[in-house]
Amino acid sequence: MKKIKIAAILLTASILNISFYAQSQSHPNLIMTKAGVEKMRKNLGKVPLFDASVQQVKQQVDKEINLGIDTPIPKDFSGGYTHQRHKLNFVIAQKAGALYQILQDEKYATYIKDMLFQYEAMYKNLPIHPQERSYARGKLFWQCLNDSNWLVYMSQAYDAIYDTLTEQEREKLENNLFRPFADFISIQNPKFYNRIHNHSTWGNAAVGMIALVMDDKELLDRALYGIEDDGLPIGGIDNDGGTIKVAGQKKGFLANLEDPFSPDGYYTEGPYYQRYAMYPFLIFALGMHNVKPEMKVFEHKDNVLLKGVNALLNLTDADGEFFPLNDGQKGMSYFTASLVTAVDVAYHYGEQNPQLLSIAEKQNKVLLNESGLSVAIGIRDGKTQPFVKNSINLSDGQNGKQGGVAVLRQGNEDLTLVFKYAAQGLSHGHYDKLSYSLYEKGDEVIQDYGLARFVNIGQKGGGNYLKENKTWAKTTIAHNTLSQDGQMHFGGKYKLASKHHSELHFYQVTDDNVQIVSATETNAYPGTDMHRTMVLIKSDGFDKPYLLDILKVNADAKHEYDLPFYFMGQVLSQNFEYESPKSLHPLGDKNGYQHLYLEGKGKPSTNSTQFSWLNEGKYYTLTTVTNPTDELLLTRLGANDPEFNLRRDAALMIRRPDSDNTSFVSVVEPHGSYSPVSELSLNSNSNIAQLTVVHDSEDYTAVVIKDIKGNSNQFIVANKNASTSQQHQLKIDNKSYKWTGPYLFINK
Amino acid sequence: MKKIKIAAILLTASILNISFYAQSQSHPNLIMTKAGVEKMRKNLGKVPLFDASVQQVKQQVDKEINLGIDTPIPKDFSGGYTHQRHKLNFVIAQKAGALYQILQDEKYATYIKDMLFQYEAMYKNLPIHPQERSYARGKLFWQCLNDSNWLVYMSQAYDAIYDTLTEQEREKLENNLFRPFADFISIQNPKFYNRIHNHSTWGNAAVGMIALVMDDKELLDRALYGIEDDGLPIGGIDNDGGTIKVAGQKKGFLANLEDPFSPDGYYTEGPYYQRYAMYPFLIFALGMHNVKPEMKVFEHKDNVLLKGVNALLNLTDADGEFFPLNDGQKGMSYFTASLVTAVDVAYHYGEQNPQLLSIAEKQNKVLLNESGLSVAIGIRDGKTQPFVKNSINLSDGQNGKQGGVAVLRQGNEDLTLVFKYAAQGLSHGHYDKLSYSLYEKGDEVIQDYGLARFVNIGQKGGGNYLKENKTWAKTTIAHNTLSQDGQMHFGGKYKLASKHHSELHFYQVTDDNVQIVSATETNAYPGTDMHRTMVLIKSDGFDKPYLLDILKVNADAKHEYDLPFYFMGQVLSQNFEYESPKSLHPLGDKNGYQHLYLEGKGKPSTNSTQFSWLNEGKYYTLTTVTNPTDELLLTRLGANDPEFNLRRDAALMIRRPDSDNTSFVSVVEPHGSYSPVSELSLNSNSNIAQLTVVHDSEDYTAVVIKDIKGNSNQFIVANKNASTSQQHQLKIDNKSYKWTGPYLFINK
Repeated sequence: MKKIKIAAILLTASILNISFYAQSQSHPNLIMTKAGVEKMRKNLGKVPLFDASVQQVKQQVDKEINLGIDTPIPKDFSGGYTHQRHKLNFVIAQKAGALYQILQDEKYATYIKDMLFQYEAMYKNLPIHPQERSYARGKLFWQCLNDSNWLVYMSQAYDAIYDTLTEQEREKLENNLFRPFADFISIQNPKFYNRIHNHSTWGNAAVGMIALVMDDKELLDRALYGIEDDGLPIGGIDNDGGTIKVAGQKKGFLANLEDPFSPDGYYTEGPYYQRYAMYPFLIFALGMHNVKPEMKVFEHKDNVLLKGVNALLNLTDADGEFFPLNDGQKGMSYFTASLVTAVDVAYHYGEQNPQLLSIAEKQNKVLLNESGLSVAIGIRDGKTQPFVKNSINLSDGQNGKQGGVAVLRQGNEDLTLVFKYAAQGLSHGHYDKLSYSLYEKGDEVIQDYGLARFVNIGQKGGGNYLKENKTWAKTTIAHNTLSQDGQMHFGGKYKLASKHHSELHFYQVTDDNVQIVSATETNAYPGTDMHRTMVLIKSDGFDKPYLLDILKVNADAKHEYDLPFYFMGQVLSQNFEYESPKSLHPLGDKNGYQHLYLEGKGKPSTNSTQFSWLNEGKYYTLTTVTNPTDELLLTRLGANDPEFNLRRDAALMIRRPDSDNTSFVSVVEPHGSYSPVSELSLNSNSNIAQLTVVHDSEDYTAVVIKDIKGNSNQFIVANKNASTSQQHQLKIDNKSYKWTGPYLFINK
Repeated sequence: MKKIKIAAILLTASILNISFYAQSQSHPNLIMTKAGVEKMRKNLGKVPLFDASVQQVKQQVDKEINLGIDTPIPKDFSGGYTHQRHKLNFVIAQKAGALYQILQDEKYATYIKDMLFQYEAMYKNLPIHPQERSYARGKLFWQCLNDSNWLVYMSQAYDAIYDTLTEQEREKLENNLFRPFADFISIQNPKFYNRIHNHSTWGNAAVGMIALVMDDKELLDRALYGIEDDGLPIGGIDNDGGTIKVAGQKKGFLANLEDPFSPDGYYTEGPYYQRYAMYPFLIFALGMHNVKPEMKVFEHKDNVLLKGVNALLNLTDADGEFFPLNDGQKGMSYFTASLVTAVDVAYHYGEQNPQLLSIAEKQNKVLLNESGLSVAIGIRDGKTQPFVKNSINLSDGQNGKQGGVAVLRQGNEDLTLVFKYAAQGLSHGHYDKLSYSLYEKGDEVIQDYGLARFVNIGQKGGGNYLKENKTWAKTTIAHNTLSQDGQMHFGGKYKLASKHHSELHFYQVTDDNVQIVSATETNAYPGTDMHRTMVLIKSDGFDKPYLLDILKVNADAKHEYDLPFYFMGQVLSQNFEYESPKSLHPLGDKNGYQHLYLEGKGKPSTNSTQFSWLNEGKYYTLTTVTNPTDELLLTRLGANDPEFNLRRDAALMIRRPDSDNTSFVSVVEPHGSYSPVSELSLNSNSNIAQLTVVHDSEDYTAVVIKDIKGNSNQFIVANKNASTSQQHQLKIDNKSYKWTGPYLFINK
């Protein structure tokens, strides 16, 4: 029954393969246009960064042309030769296309033509890829996702040489290669193609790109609106544990554009995947802009695509590296190729924001199309302004009503807090409600672990997700947030977690010196409410800004709580005694605990427990309010990791047993510096004498941070009413405090 | 008896405090001269790097002047405030002196004068420093060493303002401060002052510097020749375990210049301490050059001081960081202030080697004296040439006959081997005969641990040496060399170790593609001879050069051997099976083994055992010839380290039980690359199919490295006769090989 239906669609598709434009289109028209090409040619030799980019690409492409074309029979996972080769082929072909148009050298057209016909000869008899791990295996690659990458790039190469081919040649390519290729990744793989997921975005864009080049309405509709009747059952699960089909969900490119982006341009899977998905989104949007401007894809959902570029650039540290929220590989940054596309397209087709030019300058390359030229001209003409990253609060969810991610920044990224109170983030989400990470410039102070994967490194599970991604990286205890009774948020259940999100209490950054985000989570542990208020404070008497962290817990029963601090660096000192085991044993047997060794176990010796470390020539001290019954655990990652898939990172963990209503109040304080060259150690001790919770009720929490000179910072937060106009009054130690708005900060 | 003698010397000293020059000297004359100052003044505004250096120093000094002078009562170790303050005082005073002379602004002279009189008022009643850890406690600092630093710098400041003071003022300063200060660090601390040791070099230079300013022959003689009768017994031990008095040893500055430097300028304690000692050596030599040129201190021992600068610059990786031989803190580099002095002085007073200018350019500052001006002029005038680091073999020992350190370099520091076959290196030496480290550019591939100390970081043992320096950092198993029966070389006995040194077999770098050093050690384990031949090979078929390591052992009894590889990075894969313990236990209970956890234990599954890792975006594979009875241990540092004084670094260790004559033959092969930005993984697999020892006799060892394409590199080394003219003949597998010289390399 199902087979017949697909065959019918195939038939229909090939009958309907007729032009749907009144006048014939001229090529290139996809990401380059005739007019744009003219402009690039005219400006050759006149725009330094554009010329340099042409030369850089030319060098790379010429080298590959000299090596000759290889289209090996597919066999490898992402770490292996055939994968890398086919990937390089489409990357180089796309670039050769641009060079052909700009430099008008026939050799580039010939190279693409020869390569395409090698694929054409190969594709018709090509079986499904022999590696069986993917839920949707490709032909050239082990998964349809990479086949889609191929088509997105090859469509551009084809467009670039379209006019050099005879009609017979085009027909041969389209009938034997492009159309079967597009059908394979779509109607033959609806579970890959018809989802709301970055996979489907690539698939949709791939089909759409070739549709625009081939001038094929049926394919374009399939790209924009998906396969109407995919015959798939509700449910199903992919390799990452993500649901394949959700009842009532839309599909196709426009739905993918609609759903995972919040109105602020935040992509629910997180910046690492946003960076990956941005390319097909933008490049297909650009193609649509050029071929079907009346569809206004760039303007869709109030310019969400261009907003997405801004969100993405704001989700980086001072070195331009993306915060590794959810599954994110550290080191990925705005220097990656898809962000060159993103920045150039956002500049040219957006509002020519001159701050984007400073990012492009750092990238030191531009796209070889009109938008890249436009950026390079802007830079040449001295229009560049610094890209200023301020604090930002990005909502999550299609309507912006599923929590969010706040980034608080002090100074010129001197201290950056990334606070996650978002939705689950689809299949790449982690069980990390109200977790955070902290950066000083580009260095991690308190880290988010990121993913457990070595992308494209064949020796490590074929370059794919490792089992430790599930057993460690996604777990709650792997994050700087609260674990209850050794359990994961939502019991680690994806479906359940996907139903909920945290709620913003308030976000206020009107005072540069006291920037705050506060949010609640009531579903992660049923019966337990968590409320976390995080404040970046710049105060006299402290040489650097510091983080105040108030995590308030209200539970309907007694539990054991663990709150870890994944500090980065070398332990220096602490004000508590601890025992060091002679041998190291795992801290638990499941939910991530099985991967932690216990390196030390102690008890607080004071209410203000302190712990100091050194990292990258900078000192840090954690000061945290502890109870006498708290345990202080020093942990080290690496247990039950026989294949060395995990880093040997450390944490200090506060374990608070047998508690229902309790607060964890901490300060993470960067201070001083050390240089191994001058051997000068400055300000290596904490500036904090005492941290005290002076009031903690349902309505208010008040904290006093007393420094070593006897001065105090006092912070009071309203736990219930966060309206900026609300008046509050509170008596602490017979002293009355009156204020308006959600918080009061006093420096005395 | 001893007390009376010291008192007598003090009396004599103050009676003899008379000028020993016929004509009175004019000031400044120490590291600045009247003529030099004139030249600097004339060139102000004309030499960019000099002007920038003046401005940089001015900014620093002006800031301190605004803060006011503080000379607190001494109480802290090197991490604490009083230590840092007094240190900053002498550093700033010296700089203020230079500024006064160059800019002729009285405020700098006043600042120095006021500071000196504050010290003068304080010093006469100042007791010994309250911290009791040092074998030779200072007054301003916890050890005489730092007091000597003070006097070396303050002498320069005093010289700079000498002419601004009245004779009464000078007398007051000299009688109450400088002379008692010089006496305290010398005749009252002969065990500090009268040694062959970097401590004494500082002491001697300090006394000598003030002697030159005060024009005091008795002090100058004491500086140059030491204290004749110090009344000390033979023996005695300092804080680092170094011997204080060795029978028959000379003393004083000239003896210190004579003894620890080899004729090649290698300093037996290693580059970290050479960097530290270079400053007093050079600055006092410069003072002598200016005041007593007839003594020809720069020319002493065939220009050994200037050769020392060259040796030191060659003992750095591609980033300019010193190899951490013996006790060395990683990160120290030629960017440190003493190397600015060294480079500038070596340029100006040496042969104006234009390659030194490229180092000065990187340092981006120059000394504020004639030599700094000269360097800045050289740079301004475009004389700079790149500093080329080739392979170099530096002899150790006063006469260059106590082994040495060889640095083999391939390409432009693409691969750098540091091979140590030296003497013990005084009290800062490690028990690491025939050990090595390996670098790719500035990144460690196989690391030398360095010291266990956090210099000047108070939280870590006052910033002084930690006990783990002895229990771990100095031990044999902490190094990439052979441990026998779990023992340290020389049983870890300093006196015994100091009697011996390794011997060079040969060093040959005539063929750029096959660079070799080969050395033997016969005393570290009595009855066991070790012979290690290390070769950097650049061969067709390999994308990068690799290291071949042949360690041949001949023992008169059966032993268990451990050979560790302290690789840096993330484990990727291996071709052997191993068990991973559920809990981690220390590998042993002494000699460093107590600090190692066992993370895995396996057996070879082939004769060519392979182990791969990834570091800083580069792949590495160790291929090593193993026996079926070998054990392969995966270790992790950190056991018995309750205070987290050690890094959690890993090693692969080959354990070969029950062996007498055996060879360890290994290749460390860098290959490919990985970028977290492009996620492109290139050449991640080893190029080696098999590593075989095809011949191993008393006379010859022959190794074949077969690559995955079936090509081979064959290397034969003559173990006995290394003469370049010796003819050799060897039959292997019925094939005859004939060659001349110590080795044969065939690429086939």
